[in-house]
Amino acid sequence: MIEYRNLRVALLGAGSVGAQVADQLLTHRDELAARIGAGIELAGVAVRDLDAPRDTAIPRELLTTDAESLILSSDIVVELMGGLEPARTLILQALTSGADVITANKALLATHGPELFEAAGQVGAQLYYEAAVGGAIPIIRPLRDSLAGDRVERILGIVNGTTNFILDRMDTQGESMEQALATASALGYAEADPTADVGGYDAAQKAAILASLAFHTLVPADAVHREGITEVTLEQVVAARKAGYVVKLLAICERLTDPASGVDGVSVRVHPALIPDTHPLAAVHGANNAVFVEAEAAGSLMFYGAGAGGIQTASAVLGDVVSAARRHVVGGPGVAESTHADLPVLPISAITTRYQITLLVADEPGVLAVIAALFQSHGVSVETVQQSVTPADPARPSGAASAATLVIGTHEASEADLAATVAALTTSSVVHSVTSVLRVEGL
Amino acid sequence: MIEYRNLRVALLGAGSVGAQVADQLLTHRDELAARIGAGIELAGVAVRDLDAPRDTAIPRELLTTDAESLILSSDIVVELMGGLEPARTLILQALTSGADVITANKALLATHGPELFEAAGQVGAQLYYEAAVGGAIPIIRPLRDSLAGDRVERILGIVNGTTNFILDRMDTQGESMEQALATASALGYAEADPTADVGGYDAAQKAAILASLAFHTLVPADAVHREGITEVTLEQVVAARKAGYVVKLLAICERLTDPASGVDGVSVRVHPALIPDTHPLAAVHGANNAVFVEAEAAGSLMFYGAGAGGIQTASAVLGDVVSAARRHVVGGPGVAESTHADLPVLPISAITTRYQITLLVADEPGVLAVIAALFQSHGVSVETVQQSVTPADPARPSGAASAATLVIGTHEASEADLAATVAALTTSSVVHSVTSVLRVEGL
Repeated sequence: MIEYRNLRVALLGAGSVGAQVADQLLTHRDELAARIGAGIELAGVAVRDLDAPRDTAIPRELLTTDAESLILSSDIVVELMGGLEPARTLILQALTSGADVITANKALLATHGPELFEAAGQVGAQLYYEAAVGGAIPIIRPLRDSLAGDRVERILGIVNGTTNFILDRMDTQGESMEQALATASALGYAEADPTADVGGYDAAQKAAILASLAFHTLVPADAVHREGITEVTLEQVVAARKAGYVVKLLAICERLTDPASGVDGVSVRVHPALIPDTHPLAAVHGANNAVFVEAEAAGSLMFYGAGAGGIQTASAVLGDVVSAARRHVVGGPGVAESTHADLPVLPISAITTRYQITLLVADEPGVLAVIAALFQSHGVSVETVQQSVTPADPARPSGAASAATLVIGTHEASEADLAATVAALTTSSVVHSVTSVLRVEGL
Repeated sequence: MIEYRNLRVALLGAGSVGAQVADQLLTHRDELAARIGAGIELAGVAVRDLDAPRDTAIPRELLTTDAESLILSSDIVVELMGGLEPARTLILQALTSGADVITANKALLATHGPELFEAAGQVGAQLYYEAAVGGAIPIIRPLRDSLAGDRVERILGIVNGTTNFILDRMDTQGESMEQALATASALGYAEADPTADVGGYDAAQKAAILASLAFHTLVPADAVHREGITEVTLEQVVAARKAGYVVKLLAICERLTDPASGVDGVSVRVHPALIPDTHPLAAVHGANNAVFVEAEAAGSLMFYGAGAGGIQTASAVLGDVVSAARRHVVGGPGVAESTHADLPVLPISAITTRYQITLLVADEPGVLAVIAALFQSHGVSVETVQQSVTPADPARPSGAASAATLVIGTHEASEADLAATVAALTTSSVVHSVTSVLRVEGL
């Protein structure tokens, strides 16, 4: 049997994921070596504070505050520090020194991805990032390799566990947004400042990474249209379920032709949406993630699993470590990220989708005809109308004329036409209020 | 830009998958070249009959009956002929000549896999087979690469679309086994001779491939315990749904310690099983496939999609073609299949699982106590008992004592204890008949 020297793995960061990766590398060293066909060794763990508490015990002699020296003596560098700096600088140093790099840093990839991939390509090193999207779920490798001969048409992803947990609590437990967020915090599913999650920023970064990969196009995170879940109400969630839908925060990446200019491009967006309760994504509960992919030849595929968690994410990181190690054993440069398609990212105004609009209207004869005419005059075609007498509305002065709730489902319409329709509805004399406007996806 | 010579792809077979692969290679040639970073060319298509009708048009000058010459002038050989010979000989020739080989031939892999992987390893060629299991669903690559740093504990797979279609028709349409099979045949989901599907042979081959990969252990197809769906009745399916379960044909691969010998090994088996209707696999309808993977760190993952179909399977083949082509561009030997763990495949008698047993019993006082004692005396612990008065039983002579149906759910029990219990039940004076014995999985 050929003897290889041990491959040296440097770990940058020992938070919840890093501590688990260190533990697995130490515990399963022989097993990993057998799978790789070469020895593998945790060379060291760079941390800011040698004495900080860790999720798992890391031998003291492996800890160092000198990340640069550690990098220079390693074959594989695993960056799990998070944040933009010093992560970016350290990764560039590692790549320049010829090391393969593994990162779970979605913010960094969505911001400085092109620079990092360029640096890797120049020295023939490889940058792996399976853990950056979907935690333990293999989604990067399937998109990059398995579907490399196919044409991805659309991705619908539940890629943020916190918001899925919150929306699922509202749906299954009847909790309000505030209650559900409190539950998520209490159970450790939400950060002290939940803005990155509930504001859709985290999901937008992941959408940028998925779209870049699927469409061979550079999509920066700030090109992603982003709406969070903060305005989703329990009433919307309950009404959706009654109508056969579930409210999910979706990361949507799709090929699209701009109807205004005729330009072929991609739409990349994150927003709450209704999906049919029979859609596979509707059954994704709790903090789980799932990515639903529609490809020209493969048809519909779904990848499902834990979207976060230290040990779960460590699984994805270790898969990348083994891939990088195998590549070191067999040699050969890495596969550069392909951005050859270079499609334009179209604005949200370019999309057409279905909408569900909920209105509080005057309960009088002829109102429905007025509303229908209003939709028609703005080029939005109505598919379904449901009317119900509204329960007591505390906002309405007692003695006011009684009101009815209209739930209107549209055929596909453009964002611009829909926006104009909603604007007209809000000023219509027969409309008390527009209580909900939600896009419908997954049909 | 560096200019590479065109990589030459040989196609062996032009059936439903082969014709689609040829079509995509011809149609998307430029797109594929951009993704690979090198030109790619369909060198030829070896067929038995130059004039046979094809699903898609293949230029006449690409067709040949001389597979061997075609192979010798190609960099990548795609085997889609099916069957053991001449597929085996041609693949060995291709590997020996240094070509990378892609195959969707599960029967060949499950029978001659070790010989083929050995041949590939000796010359540093690579054998790809994403399309052999799960059609379009990426499952081989996730198991081999993404989970390479994790420890797979269990796989529950719906890996045969025909049987899932049949069981789903029984469940959702109330069709009998015969009716559902006829529907499957009429819609093209079942072959003229459905034995390979309904007998579980196809699923057993796929189980062998999945288990070999997941457990780094050589599992031949004939070591897989196999029960088909031919004895599943509509009554079982209806009763299962009523009790909160769905009947699925599952390919199960799990780590197991033989209780008799204490030996650590793996159980690889295919049989109909009840799964809870809340399990993600329960929502896999029609001819779709899904593979549910439980890994130590990653937790539960599911991979879902079309398990068959010419164009869908072609997607998986083309993903492998791109992987092989990228490897040709960057050089370096392939990753050998790892069988280092070399775990024993344990017999079905080694497993413990839960069971649901349906009995037709005498409707008399004290019967339940007799039955319960009988279970207890064989070491099988009863968890749930449901009793109902039996509807008219045509098999029972009129005037016979009335009967009741007992549905008994057990705690985990060994196959041996369960078999002894069932044997005792069939000879018990209070039991008219044992109408159903099903394993319960996915809890």
